[in-house]
Amino acid sequence: MIVIGEKINATRKAIAAALESRDAEHIAATAVEQVAAGADYLDINGGDPRPGKEVENMAWLIEVVQANTDAPIAVDSANPEAVEAGLSLAKKKPILNSISLEAERLENLIPIAEKHECMVVGLLMSDGGTPCGVDDRMENATALVEKLTAAGKKVDEIIIDPCFLTIATDINSGRAVFDAIAAIRKQWPEIHIGGGCSNISFGLPKRKYVNFAALAQAIYHGMDAGIINPCVPDIMAIIRAAEAVAGQDEFCMNYVTAMR
Amino acid sequence: MIVIGEKINATRKAIAAALESRDAEHIAATAVEQVAAGADYLDINGGDPRPGKEVENMAWLIEVVQANTDAPIAVDSANPEAVEAGLSLAKKKPILNSISLEAERLENLIPIAEKHECMVVGLLMSDGGTPCGVDDRMENATALVEKLTAAGKKVDEIIIDPCFLTIATDINSGRAVFDAIAAIRKQWPEIHIGGGCSNISFGLPKRKYVNFAALAQAIYHGMDAGIINPCVPDIMAIIRAAEAVAGQDEFCMNYVTAMR
Repeated sequence: MIVIGEKINATRKAIAAALESRDAEHIAATAVEQVAAGADYLDINGGDPRPGKEVENMAWLIEVVQANTDAPIAVDSANPEAVEAGLSLAKKKPILNSISLEAERLENLIPIAEKHECMVVGLLMSDGGTPCGVDDRMENATALVEKLTAAGKKVDEIIIDPCFLTIATDINSGRAVFDAIAAIRKQWPEIHIGGGCSNISFGLPKRKYVNFAALAQAIYHGMDAGIINPCVPDIMAIIRAAEAVAGQDEFCMNYVTAMR
Repeated sequence: MIVIGEKINATRKAIAAALESRDAEHIAATAVEQVAAGADYLDINGGDPRPGKEVENMAWLIEVVQANTDAPIAVDSANPEAVEAGLSLAKKKPILNSISLEAERLENLIPIAEKHECMVVGLLMSDGGTPCGVDDRMENATALVEKLTAAGKKVDEIIIDPCFLTIATDINSGRAVFDAIAAIRKQWPEIHIGGGCSNISFGLPKRKYVNFAALAQAIYHGMDAGIINPCVPDIMAIIRAAEAVAGQDEFCMNYVTAMR
């Protein structure tokens, strides 16, 4: 699985504080600990309501992260200037996180995706809202893949985020997203599928157990990327175990290596 | 899920020692802690190579367990005398664990299953060996259900053990057993399915992660019973989370209650 470490995000209090005081040491430590825990990419979000500030934040965060780790980055913003700045600064082929079918986002970000050599997270939301079944997810995925391949992206440069919704308000949300993942995997064998799986436990107590069970199901059905916190105890072990149990880890080599 | 607590088993050193010294306190504590952790049934195995000893062990274990908890028991033996003694002593409708298609076991145990009001674990093994695919499991399940219903058991009194095999030697073992569980669930919607899921991690390090991922998959595909150690940290939480994620726990009530 492509593990995108989610911790460097300005919606987290500690990161917002480190951003405000330009505490490079804290950001560097957050980058290094995620890579050590198993992150393949580091998500970078410097969101800020003050005009122009997000671009500045993004540039500073990327500079600090790239000075302290070799991990490629995921540029996490819907702000075209911040995305442009982030992708331009990336030393290794980055991920654009994310494009959706929302008209404004699409219009702003497709030219940027086209210009840069990058992977792209395609979120299945549209101006019509968030899909919650299999058919609406497939319809949106088809439209997004069309837009992204027309912009020169190869199918294996696309990461479809199927939109995980909480089971707290609709108990069928789990099976619906897993079935959608299976349908997407079948339609585009070489595409990547992943997203914020932990949304599935929103509103429930001791969310990690629900997240673990959901990760295992999602991997079984074909998810191969995830925006997660790899530093949560046991989470990488559960991911490697789920891959092995799903028959995706020949001789269980990745699992055994990770357990050492 | 029907949780059958597996700890009172003479193959465990501590239980063998308690049996030998007739340490009722240890057995009682092992019973009570499993019920407190969430066991619905308590498995009782008094295996002993000395002639006649297993029957005596079984009777003593059941007496101690029933004096200290209200949980029904699963009489775990292939020895007809021990099974007969165990089922006769059960105060609540017990489980006979287990019958298989092996000719001798079938011949000895079917009359006992017929005589007692009990549930029966039907292990999918035959004299031909252990099934490892979907078709051979379905063939054996069909034969076993036929034998057991002919002996007066209702389909919902049968617990099919699909035979979990380790993924350490065959990485496809996981998907094969999950597909078989789904096929059995489809064929007999009211049957129970469960067994020693932890066999799946045999030979691997830090087995609990593989067991957690496998439990989540098995529950998703239709397993609704398990012979497990409910005292393993996190295991009951993973089971309740897996049920919720699989859409089997309306409003997540069981999960939320278990997390309190």
